[in-house]
Amino acid sequence: MPRLTTAVWRHRRQQMNDLMDALRLDALVFTSADFFQFATNFHTDVLPWERPIYAVVPRDGDGFLVMNELSTNHMRFSREQGKVWITDVSFYAEHPRVVERLPLPSELPELLAQRLARAGLARARVGVEGGSPALTAAAAQLPDLRLLPCTRECRALRWRKHEEELAVMAAIGSLADWLQERYRENIRPGRLVQELDCAMAALWVQEAAERFPGEQFEVIRAWTLSGPASASPHGDGASCGARIREGDVLVNILIPRLNGLAIENERTWFCGRPNVEQAALWTAARDANLAGIEAAVSGQPVSGIDAAAQAVIERAGYAAHIRHRTGHAIGIIHHEYPENMAFCHRPLEDNEVYSVEPGLYVYGIGGFRIDDTVVVGREPRTLTATPKTLDYATVL
Amino acid sequence: MPRLTTAVWRHRRQQMNDLMDALRLDALVFTSADFFQFATNFHTDVLPWERPIYAVVPRDGDGFLVMNELSTNHMRFSREQGKVWITDVSFYAEHPRVVERLPLPSELPELLAQRLARAGLARARVGVEGGSPALTAAAAQLPDLRLLPCTRECRALRWRKHEEELAVMAAIGSLADWLQERYRENIRPGRLVQELDCAMAALWVQEAAERFPGEQFEVIRAWTLSGPASASPHGDGASCGARIREGDVLVNILIPRLNGLAIENERTWFCGRPNVEQAALWTAARDANLAGIEAAVSGQPVSGIDAAAQAVIERAGYAAHIRHRTGHAIGIIHHEYPENMAFCHRPLEDNEVYSVEPGLYVYGIGGFRIDDTVVVGREPRTLTATPKTLDYATVL
Repeated sequence: MPRLTTAVWRHRRQQMNDLMDALRLDALVFTSADFFQFATNFHTDVLPWERPIYAVVPRDGDGFLVMNELSTNHMRFSREQGKVWITDVSFYAEHPRVVERLPLPSELPELLAQRLARAGLARARVGVEGGSPALTAAAAQLPDLRLLPCTRECRALRWRKHEEELAVMAAIGSLADWLQERYRENIRPGRLVQELDCAMAALWVQEAAERFPGEQFEVIRAWTLSGPASASPHGDGASCGARIREGDVLVNILIPRLNGLAIENERTWFCGRPNVEQAALWTAARDANLAGIEAAVSGQPVSGIDAAAQAVIERAGYAAHIRHRTGHAIGIIHHEYPENMAFCHRPLEDNEVYSVEPGLYVYGIGGFRIDDTVVVGREPRTLTATPKTLDYATVL
Repeated sequence: MPRLTTAVWRHRRQQMNDLMDALRLDALVFTSADFFQFATNFHTDVLPWERPIYAVVPRDGDGFLVMNELSTNHMRFSREQGKVWITDVSFYAEHPRVVERLPLPSELPELLAQRLARAGLARARVGVEGGSPALTAAAAQLPDLRLLPCTRECRALRWRKHEEELAVMAAIGSLADWLQERYRENIRPGRLVQELDCAMAALWVQEAAERFPGEQFEVIRAWTLSGPASASPHGDGASCGARIREGDVLVNILIPRLNGLAIENERTWFCGRPNVEQAALWTAARDANLAGIEAAVSGQPVSGIDAAAQAVIERAGYAAHIRHRTGHAIGIIHHEYPENMAFCHRPLEDNEVYSVEPGLYVYGIGGFRIDDTVVVGREPRTLTATPKTLDYATVL
């Protein structure tokens, strides 16, 4: 079953403890949605700017959570499914309860201070990922508590994936390949672009229901840009009513997420045979993708992936058409740490996972981008395997 | 055409200038995605944590933008469509450009400092919404510049909507009502819940293509929870493969966004005739919704909306089943400012817009929630009008 077990939790605990030892910390507090998922395996269901959440992991002993009452039943379901790793939860109310009273949002600092004290952390050095006004106010109530920012160090904990994480990501990589085949069967002139994407998403969830029943499957993106609009990687601001036309180049973005882990698979399609210029641009993008993947080798610099892809595009004479870096790490969020791939020169580590998506964007013509998700190793390996030939990319 | 014109820009500029006068500021800088949209009408297409963006609006004179190169063609398209209000843009590169060089991310502080100086703001008092490390570093290069946080004050600028904003929101409110009719026609036992939502989204974009061609239409949510899972407002963490069963209660969430403005419309449906308990819970949720809407009167407290809805639920004996406040403001983001509706006691102002969505969540049975988007006035008026009778909610 493509699901994370407590083996991942033990592994992450060990990483956290190593970090706490290195920074001489007694506990870590996580306040971002994605780190809450990292620390708990709970599928975060609120936006922390409006509904703050806290996962506290002490160096020694069990952790605890402080959460908004909205998540009460969701947490109960997740416990019953055996999915959640920290189960000691204090809820606060976001409405004035007359029965079964709970602390109110205005009492969050008191609640946090009490829970920290009860965990023996009143005089602790506590590392903080993210942060929040209520946490700062809680610290003011515990004069011997020290909060130390460590967002950057915590992000590094997420670079290397556990084998179970890779297994989940491989399972949805394969599901994304499956959907690209369906795109190939369904692209035709006249079709409404947004309708195509919704119809493809419907096929996707049907296939996912066969493969992963009872798991948490999300369509983060099934998004196609067709024709001139595709020259902008994130759309042209006039999506409504756009239709595929004969001769269009199409770029799609497929991002599925399963039990809190995402991958990417993006392809460029031609509705009808491409002209010489389109074929050349597509070929440069494809060759850059291949070169980038080949550079995802342990010990080589992170920025080498970007450099290899860019070199191919420069040789083809298209350097002016690049509009973004070659990729980014991927995992719990689909744009993951490190995000500054092109300017990050440390050596790659085994089992880091990156998108490799060099793109070319030509105003008036369109976009050309091939994106695979690649696992760093002595031999890089991709989690997506949709064919990358011009013939395959051409829908007749 | 349901689109914001420069009349909205002039109105917002006046609000910004009034704020600057009150705080004795020479300019405002916006760094959050939603405020960037507020200040520019540009459909923000990046996540600022990884790709920082800046909109600078001086008290006197034109504003300017600093943006990531990824948005280059999107900005060009938006200018051609006449949609964007600030057009003086400096781009920075997120890949090492060998041609048409641009400042790199590491040079963002220099770029910001130069642009501020060129705008005559080197010795200014500048109000900051949000903030970013690069902006702080830019200020260090301009020793006479003062940055003053004013996120809270800026949020207040978004409470009251302009008539043109209300017109856009009414147009998509009506589109959401249209889709609820389609849900009613399509709910049946055995249907895969995620497939139903994707199929409904496909119908939605087809109808939107007729109504709003050439505009920016987004399906933010078309999300249904069926059966026991609906007892958790944001799902049970086991979405994949869930099917509608005879006797299920279903709660859906419809959130469309048009040209950067969102509304909500949520309904509770019965697949087959509800039993006595289900009908009573549904009726309490519906009556609470009606009471909440009735309380959206100018001059009455914001918290009165929540209080009115909760009073109905308490009288019905269901207070223990509430898991969230009655609603939140809505606008550029679908959870907008103020978000703390239940604990916000200032008087409501004309043309504020709120969701009114009191809910009841019963473990083992399901969720019951009716949500309309309401405009505050002497007489509250809803932008959504899907019928609210038990007969209509029952799908046979």
